[in-house]
Amino acid sequence: MSSLIPKHSGLYTDLYELTMGQGYFLTGMSDRPACFDYFFREIPFKGGYVVFAGLSNLLEVLEELSFTEEDAKYLKGLGFKDAFVEYLKAFRFKGRILSVREGEVIFPLEPVVRVEGTLFETQLIETLLLNFLNFESLIATKASRMVLAARGRRVVDFGLRRAQGLASTQASRAAVIGGVDATSNVYASYLFNLPPSGTQAHSWIQSFPDELSAFLKYAELYPDNCIFLVDTYNTLKSGLPNAIMVAKEMEKRGKKLVGIRLDSGDLAYLSKHAREMLDLAELHYVKIVASNQLDEHIVKSLLDQGAPINSFGIGTNLVTGQDSPALDGVYKLSVLDGKPRLKISENAGKTSLPGSKKIVRYTDPEGFFYADGVLLEEEKSAEYVFHPNFPEQKSRVAHCFPESILYKVMEGGKTLTKLSVGEAAAYAKERLAKLSPERKRFENPHVYKVGVSQKLMDLRNQIVQQHTKGS
Amino acid sequence: MSSLIPKHSGLYTDLYELTMGQGYFLTGMSDRPACFDYFFREIPFKGGYVVFAGLSNLLEVLEELSFTEEDAKYLKGLGFKDAFVEYLKAFRFKGRILSVREGEVIFPLEPVVRVEGTLFETQLIETLLLNFLNFESLIATKASRMVLAARGRRVVDFGLRRAQGLASTQASRAAVIGGVDATSNVYASYLFNLPPSGTQAHSWIQSFPDELSAFLKYAELYPDNCIFLVDTYNTLKSGLPNAIMVAKEMEKRGKKLVGIRLDSGDLAYLSKHAREMLDLAELHYVKIVASNQLDEHIVKSLLDQGAPINSFGIGTNLVTGQDSPALDGVYKLSVLDGKPRLKISENAGKTSLPGSKKIVRYTDPEGFFYADGVLLEEEKSAEYVFHPNFPEQKSRVAHCFPESILYKVMEGGKTLTKLSVGEAAAYAKERLAKLSPERKRFENPHVYKVGVSQKLMDLRNQIVQQHTKGS
Repeated sequence: MSSLIPKHSGLYTDLYELTMGQGYFLTGMSDRPACFDYFFREIPFKGGYVVFAGLSNLLEVLEELSFTEEDAKYLKGLGFKDAFVEYLKAFRFKGRILSVREGEVIFPLEPVVRVEGTLFETQLIETLLLNFLNFESLIATKASRMVLAARGRRVVDFGLRRAQGLASTQASRAAVIGGVDATSNVYASYLFNLPPSGTQAHSWIQSFPDELSAFLKYAELYPDNCIFLVDTYNTLKSGLPNAIMVAKEMEKRGKKLVGIRLDSGDLAYLSKHAREMLDLAELHYVKIVASNQLDEHIVKSLLDQGAPINSFGIGTNLVTGQDSPALDGVYKLSVLDGKPRLKISENAGKTSLPGSKKIVRYTDPEGFFYADGVLLEEEKSAEYVFHPNFPEQKSRVAHCFPESILYKVMEGGKTLTKLSVGEAAAYAKERLAKLSPERKRFENPHVYKVGVSQKLMDLRNQIVQQHTKGS
Repeated sequence: MSSLIPKHSGLYTDLYELTMGQGYFLTGMSDRPACFDYFFREIPFKGGYVVFAGLSNLLEVLEELSFTEEDAKYLKGLGFKDAFVEYLKAFRFKGRILSVREGEVIFPLEPVVRVEGTLFETQLIETLLLNFLNFESLIATKASRMVLAARGRRVVDFGLRRAQGLASTQASRAAVIGGVDATSNVYASYLFNLPPSGTQAHSWIQSFPDELSAFLKYAELYPDNCIFLVDTYNTLKSGLPNAIMVAKEMEKRGKKLVGIRLDSGDLAYLSKHAREMLDLAELHYVKIVASNQLDEHIVKSLLDQGAPINSFGIGTNLVTGQDSPALDGVYKLSVLDGKPRLKISENAGKTSLPGSKKIVRYTDPEGFFYADGVLLEEEKSAEYVFHPNFPEQKSRVAHCFPESILYKVMEGGKTLTKLSVGEAAAYAKERLAKLSPERKRFENPHVYKVGVSQKLMDLRNQIVQQHTKGS
């Protein structure tokens, strides 16, 4: 499918990337070899993990990234110099990218994406990379929580109408990576080959003289995929009796009503009474779909109350990330001219990790992920990993199975490998299964250990001391 | 500028719109005349108003809305019937739209957009309309709050890296409508002719042997638009002394440093000390820019503390809507075949308003907006407006100046009038000035009255009684 940003992709950036880029160009620094790391600091939703997503879309845009004649004209109008604008017109991203797989579970402070190339190209893509990875990872994570809460029941993305504008396209894709079964979003389904889903709105019911004739006509048109919205007038007094009447009519023609949908009122109360009414009418096979301002906590609460709901339609809170609408991912310079670099911060714990690094995931003998170690590229494995800010806290990982989780996904600006949405979703499911239930819990999840190797810690301390001596 | 959804715009919808559409098509109901209202129920951010935005982008997409050959093939693959898909291929939106102006201040339950046309076309655009208007209005509203908090100081959108993916494009536009002065987002600036802004990141500083040489080189390259990021190593011990040294060098060449930017640490403390240091060096003209996780409450708090900040760069919390990441706008059928319709809800207060309606805004003799009245189209004005759910609460508006605020903006699918971003921003500013400070306050704002006319109330009660009799 085509790129999400069909034209003008070079402009999809913050102005300062271009201002700095021109600076590097004019001072002859553009081609110095550089390396940047992408990582986040805080897990959204007060959760225990993040599901990484957005990589395939990013790689696709990077392959196409360019400046058109029109872009060039615009940038000249902003005051950029002719020579630099000519340079941009000839520009293509030729860098190398190493990344964890889409669908991987990831944790704070570990460099899950590494971008290597010239200083100019690695800097230029900062904003684009952050914009794509932060958002899709956020939504894949939120989706995985809802899927977890639904305990095997179907979860469908209904979010397009409340999504943040064009974010909808990426949100629906990320939701499927996070485990959602289908989406109402036709455009995203088309672009990314997602399973689309949907039946009728209140306006369908209102367009007929009464609810019964609206249901009858719908059943006639869609006898094999019929779900009735039963709350237009009164769920238990009108919607259910009419749905049952039509289901019985459908049976005479050898058809089965798929389900009824509750979209207002107390979903626990209504679903229990609806189930009773359906069962009394021997309509045990008719499923109950619930929607209306759901999130993972409400889904959990409904199931804890024994609500006999078979499928959840989740909109706003899924596609916006609701309580944490942004992942705080950042992109920091870690190597320049082959030398490790870092940014010192006055906010404690925000000093970055220097050098070219890998991530080793350690799986314990029971098959659960135990800890991640951030090591220097040249290190094989480690016996201990150390808390990056409190080195007196260390974890022994020598008894665990080590797995290097960064893969080369782009070389010379060409994509080497990427997962389809289905593959990424399957991978996320597989990886989430290896995270202990305590780490997936909604309330105060058990913190997953991310440590650094002794060598990396020493390197960081040494550079910090160089910068701070005398101050 | 070109449409935000260049191709496949017909697919930018929920599946059920197409499923219902096919139903209307197959039953010969497509061409029945219909009318839908757009309104929201709850003001985000616990605020007192919403700034309406997104209309121009919506109109632009509606003018282009169509189904390509590829879309048709895709929909057939999903099981849509050949005859219906042919109908879609020939489809163009030919409806009429009445709307408040972009930049208008709006309130819960009033139908700020009215869409008239065939049942098919008015239904089809539901999701698209909601997706665009909900999001842009949300961000214009959030932006206006930040601008209010900044009390005349400059506010710049820095949000692209944390925006919800492609939502960034609409977010930056909406932020400018809400009053933001400039944006870091080059793509949105290009598309919508917004003022772009930006200087340098930490990586610029890190790319030089030391901070001083990074500043010197930047000042040499950009002598007229130079703002130094001073927190890469240590704000007060390194960043400020180096910035002051370079500012003094610049003075020798007849140039003036524009500002310094603080991006971490305690912004109140650092800005006060930075101001002192700058003033001591006779650099009174150098401005202080602050960024790092700001929102309207932090901006207010900083200024309440006397922080001498001249300009605020606001990212995540501006472009995502942070604490309320979605506006809950809905789209409800109000007329079909010339007859008023409504949706009864089991959630109290969610029953919709039937019929073709207008909004009259009443301005009090002091020049402040006093109340909005929702009247039937044929009504001229009203002496009283009634609370839509508690009719015993009524407000006399006869002493106020009435103003009808719905304008015809599209006829036969062609845009009649739309505001540029600059015009919408100017209109928002003008309208917000007529809203009393109590209604713009962040804590428990004074609730603005939206009432219905006696006739509209009678009509609604009459239809509700018809539907509920016997149940």
